[in-house]
Amino acid sequence: MDLDITKKLIKPADTKIVLLVMDGLGGIPDSSTNLTELESAYTPNLDNLASKSICGLQQPVATGITPGSGPGHLALFGYNPIEFQVGRGVLAAYGIGFDLQDKDVAARGNFCTVDDNGVVIDRRAGRISTEKNKELCQLIRDNINIPGIEVFVETVKEHRFLLVLRGEDLSGELYDTDPQEIGKPPLPPRVSSSNAEKTREVVEEFLRQVREILREQHPANMVLLRGFSMKPGWPTMEDVFGLKSAAIAAYPMYKGLAKLIGMDILPTGETISEEFKTLEEHWNKYDFFYLHVKKTDSSGEDGDFNRKKMIIEEVDQYIPRLLDLKPDVIIVTGDHSTPSELKAHSWHPVPVLLWSKHCRPDNVKHFGERECINGALGPRFPAVELLPLALANAGRLEKFGA
Amino acid sequence: MDLDITKKLIKPADTKIVLLVMDGLGGIPDSSTNLTELESAYTPNLDNLASKSICGLQQPVATGITPGSGPGHLALFGYNPIEFQVGRGVLAAYGIGFDLQDKDVAARGNFCTVDDNGVVIDRRAGRISTEKNKELCQLIRDNINIPGIEVFVETVKEHRFLLVLRGEDLSGELYDTDPQEIGKPPLPPRVSSSNAEKTREVVEEFLRQVREILREQHPANMVLLRGFSMKPGWPTMEDVFGLKSAAIAAYPMYKGLAKLIGMDILPTGETISEEFKTLEEHWNKYDFFYLHVKKTDSSGEDGDFNRKKMIIEEVDQYIPRLLDLKPDVIIVTGDHSTPSELKAHSWHPVPVLLWSKHCRPDNVKHFGERECINGALGPRFPAVELLPLALANAGRLEKFGA
Repeated sequence: MDLDITKKLIKPADTKIVLLVMDGLGGIPDSSTNLTELESAYTPNLDNLASKSICGLQQPVATGITPGSGPGHLALFGYNPIEFQVGRGVLAAYGIGFDLQDKDVAARGNFCTVDDNGVVIDRRAGRISTEKNKELCQLIRDNINIPGIEVFVETVKEHRFLLVLRGEDLSGELYDTDPQEIGKPPLPPRVSSSNAEKTREVVEEFLRQVREILREQHPANMVLLRGFSMKPGWPTMEDVFGLKSAAIAAYPMYKGLAKLIGMDILPTGETISEEFKTLEEHWNKYDFFYLHVKKTDSSGEDGDFNRKKMIIEEVDQYIPRLLDLKPDVIIVTGDHSTPSELKAHSWHPVPVLLWSKHCRPDNVKHFGERECINGALGPRFPAVELLPLALANAGRLEKFGA
Repeated sequence: MDLDITKKLIKPADTKIVLLVMDGLGGIPDSSTNLTELESAYTPNLDNLASKSICGLQQPVATGITPGSGPGHLALFGYNPIEFQVGRGVLAAYGIGFDLQDKDVAARGNFCTVDDNGVVIDRRAGRISTEKNKELCQLIRDNINIPGIEVFVETVKEHRFLLVLRGEDLSGELYDTDPQEIGKPPLPPRVSSSNAEKTREVVEEFLRQVREILREQHPANMVLLRGFSMKPGWPTMEDVFGLKSAAIAAYPMYKGLAKLIGMDILPTGETISEEFKTLEEHWNKYDFFYLHVKKTDSSGEDGDFNRKKMIIEEVDQYIPRLLDLKPDVIIVTGDHSTPSELKAHSWHPVPVLLWSKHCRPDNVKHFGERECINGALGPRFPAVELLPLALANAGRLEKFGA
């Protein structure tokens, strides 16, 4: 879907769209029951909604491609994730709620172990504790000194941290220093574009000082850096789709993503109940609401089939409250599949339903992977086309041509 | 599917993929039974495999397009057949097992009949016998003499032969000399690119001499040339997909195609049994195996519904031996449809199944055209996306984005 075509057809309307994302929703069948998490969940409200909706399975990026959370969400927001690629450093910053500025360069860091010759012998420093990580970040902050550059070193989790460099004329166009395997020294910082030379020098100096600072901190006696990047200057949801948009998400990463495309971030709590309460409280103020449920993904990543199923059942109970708000369009889907069996994101297409008063419902009666195959959206619907379809159902697109 | 994106996500894995191609697999229903060849075949093993697989119908090139064997196979190998076009001369060379060198120019030739004014009155010279063709090729070989150029004239079948020109600075960028209709003289050789001028002169001289050599050989007293082309310099399966690949095929054309993308060609016999034996013998040496069954197509081309059905049944009996090898991913499909009713390749989408332990099976229980419509791959799956999907199922693709 070409954003430019949609953009030209946008017309204003007093209608509201809700995108409910159950992160990692899709699954694969459990070997004993031959049912997926969603198929085995008791979801009378979602089933009822599905029976009035058009259903299908959507592909966030492309056939066979396992999406990260960034690309998976961008596709749902109507942004082609191959065209709109966000750097890993930037995502890491958003992941911990770091307020990245326009000129900042961000990178993901790992504490690692090097031997006396500087050769990496453990790329994760034995997965040190988050507590230890905090100590080490503090140690670096207390001792680092690069003239003209403000350096932020922030704990993420275990061996992972965030590096942000703030100063003039910095660039994200540097290659990773992580050699990706043990038995080799960290790679020196190298530019992928000549205008990053100053940044390269700054990173080189940072690494020189860090090596000194961490010298006695075995096993976490060095760092590896990846995913240098800066905030991209993307068009907003309002620019492109004419939607005043709000994000309701408990986790920093998703708030950060939403902020990248100009959504307002509504303060909310950690529970699904608090998120729906936030939705209700702000109902009159926006055209588009993105509501994110994280725990379907985290339970899938943990391999906990039953917990994932129960979280889906919990979400199901809030569907009547959503309907009470009388939205014009509802989309329920995930940003990718996270089968408990695989304990990871996967390439499998994601169940999706789109409801509106005028959607022309198909024959799907239950919201589940196998039933959705034969829905009106088909078994491989490009996720990036969901938002334009929502706009159409919301009466927000003009006719194309005469 | 953009090869560049897939290429960036390739990761190594100790997994094996088997692509079993029943050439011309798809059919249309017989008027008496209303069943296709595949639907009427007794295929308990394929049905059992289908019930654990994702199924669908795939389109090798595009809707409504009848694929030749070249494009049909290239799509299955993950190469977009519209982007990767192989010249007809090159295909003809592979079709007879001619060992084409990098600088050779190949063209398909027809013996034809011209009248006293040089006007074509039969484009196929009355379909002379293959024996006669061999005599004439020998006659040309014995008498042709173009300084600096080695000329190969090789019998294909009936009125068809292969011309290969070997020398320095040759180019395939010439138009056909076949006027495509009777009542006109052969077209003179013309360049489609200025760097083919030398080749044009060589072909002009070749045609001048051939006309003399064949003067008394009515009805085969002239030749028409088509599909001038050279070996393309394509990336290999190992380059693009990280797969050490082998082809098991009895017919020269398919070995030639496989060689174009860097597959090893395993020596094998003419029977399906010998082909599976070859697969077993080389099982440990490759990541990807392409196994080609020719006779489904040739029986379809002969209009022999029953023989095509029996060959499908024969292949079915080898499925347990395939499963015994414990491959990680199996694809069973054809390179195009060849309905016996039409006695020719056709545009109809081709039944396909893809099995892996984690494929998320759909509801298809029998491997047949009409059941596959409702499979998870859908009724018009782009064939070129099968290989990326196989890679995903084989654990050979990284996540896209964070």
